[in-house]
Amino acid sequence: MATSVNSKLQQAVTDLADKRAELLVALVRCPSLLGQEGDAQRLMAERLVDLGLEVDVWEPDVDEVRRHPAFCAYPGFEELGYRDRPMVVGRLAGAGGGRSLILQGHMDVVSAEPRAAWAHDPWGGEQVDGKVYGRGSADMKGGLVAALSAVEALVASGIRPRGDVLIQSVIDEEAYSNGALACALRGYRADAAIVGEPTGMEVIAAHAGVSHFRITVEGRSAHPAHKTEGVCAIEKSMLVYRALMDLEADRRARVRHPLFPNGSPVEIVVGTMHAGSWRSSVAGEAVLETRLGFAPGETIEQVQAELVERLRVVSHADPWLRDHPLGLERIGYTASADLPIEHPFVGVVRGVARAGGLGEIELQGHGAGNDMQSLIHHAQTPAIVWGPGASDAAHVANEFVELADVERATRLYAETIAAWCGLAT
Amino acid sequence: MATSVNSKLQQAVTDLADKRAELLVALVRCPSLLGQEGDAQRLMAERLVDLGLEVDVWEPDVDEVRRHPAFCAYPGFEELGYRDRPMVVGRLAGAGGGRSLILQGHMDVVSAEPRAAWAHDPWGGEQVDGKVYGRGSADMKGGLVAALSAVEALVASGIRPRGDVLIQSVIDEEAYSNGALACALRGYRADAAIVGEPTGMEVIAAHAGVSHFRITVEGRSAHPAHKTEGVCAIEKSMLVYRALMDLEADRRARVRHPLFPNGSPVEIVVGTMHAGSWRSSVAGEAVLETRLGFAPGETIEQVQAELVERLRVVSHADPWLRDHPLGLERIGYTASADLPIEHPFVGVVRGVARAGGLGEIELQGHGAGNDMQSLIHHAQTPAIVWGPGASDAAHVANEFVELADVERATRLYAETIAAWCGLAT
Repeated sequence: MATSVNSKLQQAVTDLADKRAELLVALVRCPSLLGQEGDAQRLMAERLVDLGLEVDVWEPDVDEVRRHPAFCAYPGFEELGYRDRPMVVGRLAGAGGGRSLILQGHMDVVSAEPRAAWAHDPWGGEQVDGKVYGRGSADMKGGLVAALSAVEALVASGIRPRGDVLIQSVIDEEAYSNGALACALRGYRADAAIVGEPTGMEVIAAHAGVSHFRITVEGRSAHPAHKTEGVCAIEKSMLVYRALMDLEADRRARVRHPLFPNGSPVEIVVGTMHAGSWRSSVAGEAVLETRLGFAPGETIEQVQAELVERLRVVSHADPWLRDHPLGLERIGYTASADLPIEHPFVGVVRGVARAGGLGEIELQGHGAGNDMQSLIHHAQTPAIVWGPGASDAAHVANEFVELADVERATRLYAETIAAWCGLAT
Repeated sequence: MATSVNSKLQQAVTDLADKRAELLVALVRCPSLLGQEGDAQRLMAERLVDLGLEVDVWEPDVDEVRRHPAFCAYPGFEELGYRDRPMVVGRLAGAGGGRSLILQGHMDVVSAEPRAAWAHDPWGGEQVDGKVYGRGSADMKGGLVAALSAVEALVASGIRPRGDVLIQSVIDEEAYSNGALACALRGYRADAAIVGEPTGMEVIAAHAGVSHFRITVEGRSAHPAHKTEGVCAIEKSMLVYRALMDLEADRRARVRHPLFPNGSPVEIVVGTMHAGSWRSSVAGEAVLETRLGFAPGETIEQVQAELVERLRVVSHADPWLRDHPLGLERIGYTASADLPIEHPFVGVVRGVARAGGLGEIELQGHGAGNDMQSLIHHAQTPAIVWGPGASDAAHVANEFVELADVERATRLYAETIAAWCGLAT
């Protein structure tokens, strides 16, 4: 990129500082919780229209999305559907002859409970010492603002890329990536994509798959005075818990991926357990919800088969469980994914990062799921995760993002567009 | 008792068969669940009035009952209070010079869920082959009908006892015996009492105390990708579960009572466990509700001290629990109780039973709580539990009572009144 173009872009990014802060605060003030994404998405769409982009705002067709094998329902989906929960895609048409790029982010945020843990209003967008506080500030309205601002810097500088640039503002990332899937089903593809999740501008080129299962443990309820006639489902659940932890240990020793040098993302967590219906009866049933992570290269089918086998073994060893089979239901998953390190987009990002003062970046693996896998598997779009804000600021109280980090991301995104999509002379 | 009187009473009991069946069916058709006891209690009061008894119908004063140390709140009590939840006591005034007797029963019933397990309408009062089916038929509307019918047989026979006979129809037995407590606070006392719970006419002269505790286990929530920073409250709960089972085993070896030759009623049950808030996070908290039984002669304070000590030991052995103390809250209890076997009322009941064809009765201990303890501790009234219906018919689907058993109880109650209270010549 010519130095004059480069410095024009840099200046434009600098000049947009107030507009970024204003938009970020405005977005944080829209509590875009599950089912309440409408206001934030409409604001995003307005701003994309203001930039002169072609903007596509649509409510996905529930039946079409649901038919896809990667769709996962979540609690409340049947009632919510996609009414007033639009997807937003803005397209800056390229001049032609260049590679296209998707800048992707999700507008949905997780709950701000417990509120008592917050020193700042989670929906206030308070600015203190260069930080914007609030639920979703880092995860990931900061990344969406950087994407929009990067395109705005191009437009303001009168710089036109050769390839198309698409800004995708989706929902349902926190719920099995159904929103990213809806974008793919709408036909959106590109030659590469950046998911702007908060990574502190580390480049994530591989991430875990996540699967959720519900395990139902049958016991036999009984009055305490006849306790020996009962079978405590809580006690039997302990066998299941142990079996899951043994499976994790086994997989940790066995499953390998080069971008996870410290061990593959095979964590198993029993997130919830609910057992019994009355304090004075032997618990007749327990329901455990568990999360199994899996590495890029592994499929949900493989992981599920390993779980089934492990539960079979533990059930076989226990006379009660042998006769009272555990219930197992898969209640959701997102795939794992990775991008080959030799992919040309990785080279371009490395170059931009080097020029931008980040030094020689080392590709990272990440132990959690996100929309990257959906772009790769369903939109056939090579993708990385690369965005502003600390990853450990997500989902916690007093979430924040530094405006300086959003600015740096804006600059790096703008330069990536220039380097990847090419510039019209 | 003179033979002529005896045969008159017997005949009256026989003649009342249809009225017993009618009343029992009518009571079963009132779903006197927690908070909905009004209709059944009003029906009981009407019938007592019809017999010519002095009838006291009152809604207990919430504040007065609550002030008593034996009162235990239960879920929903604050909203329910005692509005439209009256207590009913009918008094057949004795001619004077005899011992008084309370015939006590509770009108409240436990839930009929799951309905699918019932082959009969739980609120239908269906009569099949001499049985009346329905929730509460055995536990314990059958016992209440027997009490009323025994007094009716006396009245119908023109037989007047010397001592007062009181029929107490209470609520809240299934909820920590607050109703029996309210009767005691109203001033009702007698020289002896029969609680008509379904015992198959076995005589219960000792029963367990029951205590409920809520144990809160703190963990530390974490994203699975940072699992090692988390502490799973479900895993820590297993230590607590084991400690409780060890305490039970220890108490089983140590605690003795002569009416529990097969082991004292020291059962510990973890009835419910609720842990975690989201399937994909390390569970940050678990709440266990546990039930500890205790023997006659033991106090709630002793049992609680043993529990505290056991939890202290297990917490001391675990570094996390040492720094994150378990929460322990007593959420309810009913005392244990026993009646000395040399009490004169036991001799009278033995004699009535022998004459009634039950042979030489052996006093039993029972592993569950009931209102007997409240009569003994708060009304200073020596009491036994002795009533129609099988104890294992209580709280289960397709609960029923045999009308022949209700008739036998009616006869035995009438003869006990005659033998204990004496008859005016």
